[in-house]
Amino acid sequence: MTEQGYFTEESSADVVISRNDQAKDKRLAEVMEVITRHLHAAVKEIEPTQDEWMQAILFLTETGHKSDDWRQEFILLSDVLGVSMLVDAINNRKPTGASESTVLGPFHVADAPEKPMGAKICLDGKGEPMLVKGRILDTDGNPIAGAKIDVWQTNDDGFYDVQQKGIQPDFNLRGVFRTGADGSYHFWGAKPRFYPIPDDGPVGKLLGALGRHPYRPAHVHYIIEAEGFETLVTHIFDPDDDYIHTDAVFGVKQSLMAKFRHITAADRISTEGQAGAFYEVIHDFVLAPVI
Amino acid sequence: MTEQGYFTEESSADVVISRNDQAKDKRLAEVMEVITRHLHAAVKEIEPTQDEWMQAILFLTETGHKSDDWRQEFILLSDVLGVSMLVDAINNRKPTGASESTVLGPFHVADAPEKPMGAKICLDGKGEPMLVKGRILDTDGNPIAGAKIDVWQTNDDGFYDVQQKGIQPDFNLRGVFRTGADGSYHFWGAKPRFYPIPDDGPVGKLLGALGRHPYRPAHVHYIIEAEGFETLVTHIFDPDDDYIHTDAVFGVKQSLMAKFRHITAADRISTEGQAGAFYEVIHDFVLAPVI
Repeated sequence: MTEQGYFTEESSADVVISRNDQAKDKRLAEVMEVITRHLHAAVKEIEPTQDEWMQAILFLTETGHKSDDWRQEFILLSDVLGVSMLVDAINNRKPTGASESTVLGPFHVADAPEKPMGAKICLDGKGEPMLVKGRILDTDGNPIAGAKIDVWQTNDDGFYDVQQKGIQPDFNLRGVFRTGADGSYHFWGAKPRFYPIPDDGPVGKLLGALGRHPYRPAHVHYIIEAEGFETLVTHIFDPDDDYIHTDAVFGVKQSLMAKFRHITAADRISTEGQAGAFYEVIHDFVLAPVI
Repeated sequence: MTEQGYFTEESSADVVISRNDQAKDKRLAEVMEVITRHLHAAVKEIEPTQDEWMQAILFLTETGHKSDDWRQEFILLSDVLGVSMLVDAINNRKPTGASESTVLGPFHVADAPEKPMGAKICLDGKGEPMLVKGRILDTDGNPIAGAKIDVWQTNDDGFYDVQQKGIQPDFNLRGVFRTGADGSYHFWGAKPRFYPIPDDGPVGKLLGALGRHPYRPAHVHYIIEAEGFETLVTHIFDPDDDYIHTDAVFGVKQSLMAKFRHITAADRISTEGQAGAFYEVIHDFVLAPVI
């Protein structure tokens, strides 16, 4: 080691990075180089006191301790810092005209039942009926037949079925549909509600100290798969939701706004076989071709 | 929110930071702005896959789970990434001529016994005797009387007493000394050995994947306090140690090198009342004045 090889405030990141010369895992070394460089730059800008450094250590430790098989506090941290959405964006760059992705979230269930097009997925009749419909298209505007549409949403209290075992029926507000030749889909759900991300842990405390709320605006989740196309993981959002501009996890994109219209006209109520007013959401999705 | 307010790859950090407008804790908001900016910049450079992102989440979770009242894996992570040393450097900028600091480490004990100058702190006679001596000076070269010198070190197997309860005597290789009018100090220890930081957790696995070893070169710890001077937390290192250029936690500084001389001359052995060869380390410390 030359004199220049010693650790100083100026050389700190270079000295740390130079130790990885013999790394077996080259990608890891590349990743750690970027992380080390930004970590040291951040520390130099922040100039933390020893107490502040210890607070950061304890925050990370508490975030780890809060995580178990059912709760992932580091994913929440990634979510509220916009990192999850950024990773999603980087991995899902779409050609012009294709629908945009957003985060999967923790509430997808792999084995939701396939249902006939038009089925009710609201199994307990709770909340305001909501007709959701649209088409699955390619970037030329042609319908995609045989697309698999996996949808899930909260009930009108803002809870997914898996959060209310024994209160909601199993697979409530979930369903899998398959498009016919015209590429269209429709199903009956219930108007979803905004809900908080779990905020009784260190991430919730952080949000509080930053003057941020923990809410996500009302949305419906989709995974849309079709042969020859990139799988689309996304939501549609209610643009009239109070939290539409401040989603705690930054999942909202302008192209994912879908008007939740309140239908009160007697003829529409009658045509759709409803007892009273309902909501209607019309949203098409455009899938990007596999290249 | 304007159209520009939506989360995109380009705007991501700005959108996240803008949510902290109402932060109650202004310093936290300032810190989180820097962290968010560097975190997003790092993600954009790395372009992690979803799998790599999940590996990072699981690494952090495991690091939290490994931490308890006795083991602090996040501090180890901070140590091996050079962050602990950088925070130390930022908080201990010294005037020219003053001795440099290094990390405290986890093995300091608050209530080590005060001993008469020249005492043996090696209570079990194990290892090679080592005479450590020098002076405590101000930046003008004047001796500092009444300086409190708290020293601790490993034994010749590379273990601190607190790591070997029942094997080493309590307070083995620890002592507190106070300088007289000439500012000098001396005590008898045992030649310390290099040792690994705990490497059976996720941080040890990370070091392995990066081709790094977990060792710290042999050293003696000091905390030196004197009225009117800044407290100095530091080590002295054996420049002939195999790991002197690759301390796993980056604690080595050139000014902290202290030659560990092997004394074999019969007259010195006799003068010092030793039965055979011993080591001698001579190192002065210069304290910075409180400004």
